[in-house]
Amino acid sequence: MALIVQKYGGTSVGTTERIRAVAKRILETQQAGNRVVAVVSAMSGVTDALIRLAREVSPRPTERELDVLLATGEQTTIALTAMAINALGGVAISLTGAQAGIVTDGIHTKAKISNIEPTEIIRLLDEGKIVIVAGFQGKTSSGDITTLGRGGSDLTAIAIAAVLQADMCEIYTDVDGVFTCDPRIVPNARKIEVISYDEMLEMASSGSKVMQSRSVEFAKKFHVEFVVRNSFNNKPGTLVTEEKPSMEEVVVRGISVERNQAKITIQSVPDRPGIAAKIFRVIAAAHIIVDMIVQNVGIDGLTDISFTVNRDELEKLGHLLDPTVREIGAKGVIIQSGVAKLSVVGIGMRSHSGVAARLFDALSKGGINIQMISTSEIKIAVIIDEERIVEAARLAHDAFGLGEGS
Amino acid sequence: MALIVQKYGGTSVGTTERIRAVAKRILETQQAGNRVVAVVSAMSGVTDALIRLAREVSPRPTERELDVLLATGEQTTIALTAMAINALGGVAISLTGAQAGIVTDGIHTKAKISNIEPTEIIRLLDEGKIVIVAGFQGKTSSGDITTLGRGGSDLTAIAIAAVLQADMCEIYTDVDGVFTCDPRIVPNARKIEVISYDEMLEMASSGSKVMQSRSVEFAKKFHVEFVVRNSFNNKPGTLVTEEKPSMEEVVVRGISVERNQAKITIQSVPDRPGIAAKIFRVIAAAHIIVDMIVQNVGIDGLTDISFTVNRDELEKLGHLLDPTVREIGAKGVIIQSGVAKLSVVGIGMRSHSGVAARLFDALSKGGINIQMISTSEIKIAVIIDEERIVEAARLAHDAFGLGEGS
Repeated sequence: MALIVQKYGGTSVGTTERIRAVAKRILETQQAGNRVVAVVSAMSGVTDALIRLAREVSPRPTERELDVLLATGEQTTIALTAMAINALGGVAISLTGAQAGIVTDGIHTKAKISNIEPTEIIRLLDEGKIVIVAGFQGKTSSGDITTLGRGGSDLTAIAIAAVLQADMCEIYTDVDGVFTCDPRIVPNARKIEVISYDEMLEMASSGSKVMQSRSVEFAKKFHVEFVVRNSFNNKPGTLVTEEKPSMEEVVVRGISVERNQAKITIQSVPDRPGIAAKIFRVIAAAHIIVDMIVQNVGIDGLTDISFTVNRDELEKLGHLLDPTVREIGAKGVIIQSGVAKLSVVGIGMRSHSGVAARLFDALSKGGINIQMISTSEIKIAVIIDEERIVEAARLAHDAFGLGEGS
Repeated sequence: MALIVQKYGGTSVGTTERIRAVAKRILETQQAGNRVVAVVSAMSGVTDALIRLAREVSPRPTERELDVLLATGEQTTIALTAMAINALGGVAISLTGAQAGIVTDGIHTKAKISNIEPTEIIRLLDEGKIVIVAGFQGKTSSGDITTLGRGGSDLTAIAIAAVLQADMCEIYTDVDGVFTCDPRIVPNARKIEVISYDEMLEMASSGSKVMQSRSVEFAKKFHVEFVVRNSFNNKPGTLVTEEKPSMEEVVVRGISVERNQAKITIQSVPDRPGIAAKIFRVIAAAHIIVDMIVQNVGIDGLTDISFTVNRDELEKLGHLLDPTVREIGAKGVIIQSGVAKLSVVGIGMRSHSGVAARLFDALSKGGINIQMISTSEIKIAVIIDEERIVEAARLAHDAFGLGEGS
């Protein structure tokens, strides 16, 4: 008897009609001879509505209380899902994060799972019950309600799969899986059958919003294989798993696009130790999340340091760097929004040279100018004009033969 | 330093604006030098909306899961109320029923409080915090979420006041207190300053919907004095307390009206032991709640047995009694809806004769026919035509000099 952990996201349980459909799928999974734990998110829109309520009573809601409030979203879904399964003749029991034994640290609104005590889940499974667990939430060791922050429900599912040593973890969402590129951008994008954790991580951190990086990292760390599937159909989805030697045969697994980027360049920075640290200390202190950082070799003891941030971070940036720029004697700061990032990802590129050249060649043929380049072992990322991003993605997708029928 | 337990009902916290108003009142109570525990209900309309959701996924929602679902209503309010207090500069902490140590039996949707473990509440009060507790809910000793059924939040407040030996318990609602009669029926009805538990119980069970009887019974049992007050103003409210000798000076405390009653008469019942038991066993088995029961002395070994039920119960009654009527050899059943109950309540009537006579006299002067009479030590109740109930209430109210300026 296999143990399967399923996770259903907000759109999958977005209406009571959808919840009934999900209930049917969960029950069928059990009836096929499996033990089933299903982790569910808040119905889509509910979390935002709760945050609006909070803002109506407080300009800066206490984070402890925000967690108490937000936790009601998933609690509503577990109850409705369990009822719907029972209405179909199944036997389901709902558990809040606290009841399921999800123990976290006390960092409200972005708690980390410190431990899972699965005795209650196991007891219920042993009784033949379907267990419905509230995603995104837990409790501290002293019993306070916490939430896990963005992507928290995925994390709940993968952590439960890890602690129960589940045979399979299925992450249900509203897309068919992970694609070679966003099909809205590249119409002939293909669904990826199997992807390694590292590739998935690079795709996620490069804008493929199927899952948050932290859940993938957690899965990698605890060797949890999982499938990303569509709850609206029965297609097999994308398997995310350990890297296998055969995976290297595919040089490029996919292309990821991130819009709404901004590029900040600090010009003519004295090329001395400690200068970069000084700049990024200021940025980190303002809680601005930096993505790419590029610094060229300096000429005449001066260099340009460039970095990218999400455009939404620009407001926080403001004139934050001006004093530092003066202090270190740099020439000035140029902020340029309206850029986007294109990333080419694949563990195969480790053993294949020429990937960068092929990408640059493809973009150059389209007359697309590359403003920044950054590489990791399994990724090449470039910053280009946002207006050209769709064209660039299609050119790169074709260049690496990723498309349907390529 | 006094300890005050407050309870705010659904309309008192019906909007975020109202929650801010309630937060202000709670904080001011603390700032006046008190320790404060506030019990809050779900925002008005929320519980009904949740029940509608449940019905959309299941024709008969599992009661355990209904409790998980409904508990989110109060959990939302505790979080918002605590946030609102914190936004005003106070320090409030919310506790769900489970976190507050409200332990109940396992009868889902109508659980009974079996125990309160107030260590967490006391710890937080000792730290100078305002404690906001979710009304209406608790947990079983094995950790399942339960709800207390109708009037559950009042019960939570009174039980907490009892266990903490609070100096005062304030039940905030949307009316100024308990009135000599419903002011919508009798415009010159007067607010009652002090009322005994027993009078309050008779008023409640006779249709004065300020509080459910079970909370008043609980308060009486554990000697919890409480005030019913209006959260929309600062009027002093009605004190509900132990009976005191001086209370007997008032013969009639108030008049209570209950519409939507139905009268069932079983005609020509053989006047033998065990016949009434047989009839009411059948009714109880169908979970029909019976109010008044009247049986006259029999003539020629035959008697009529009449009883009243809420009109909503008639559907359940149907032809339920037909087999029993045949079995016992009674003549038939007459069901008459369109009747109402008027009750005159006061502990003073124990030591004053003539109350019944004065009531009958008043009704007779108005030409109102009395169909049934039932009395307890501190109450006289009559069943009359529902169309005459407003007139009857006004006549009785005047007859006992209850009105403003009487």
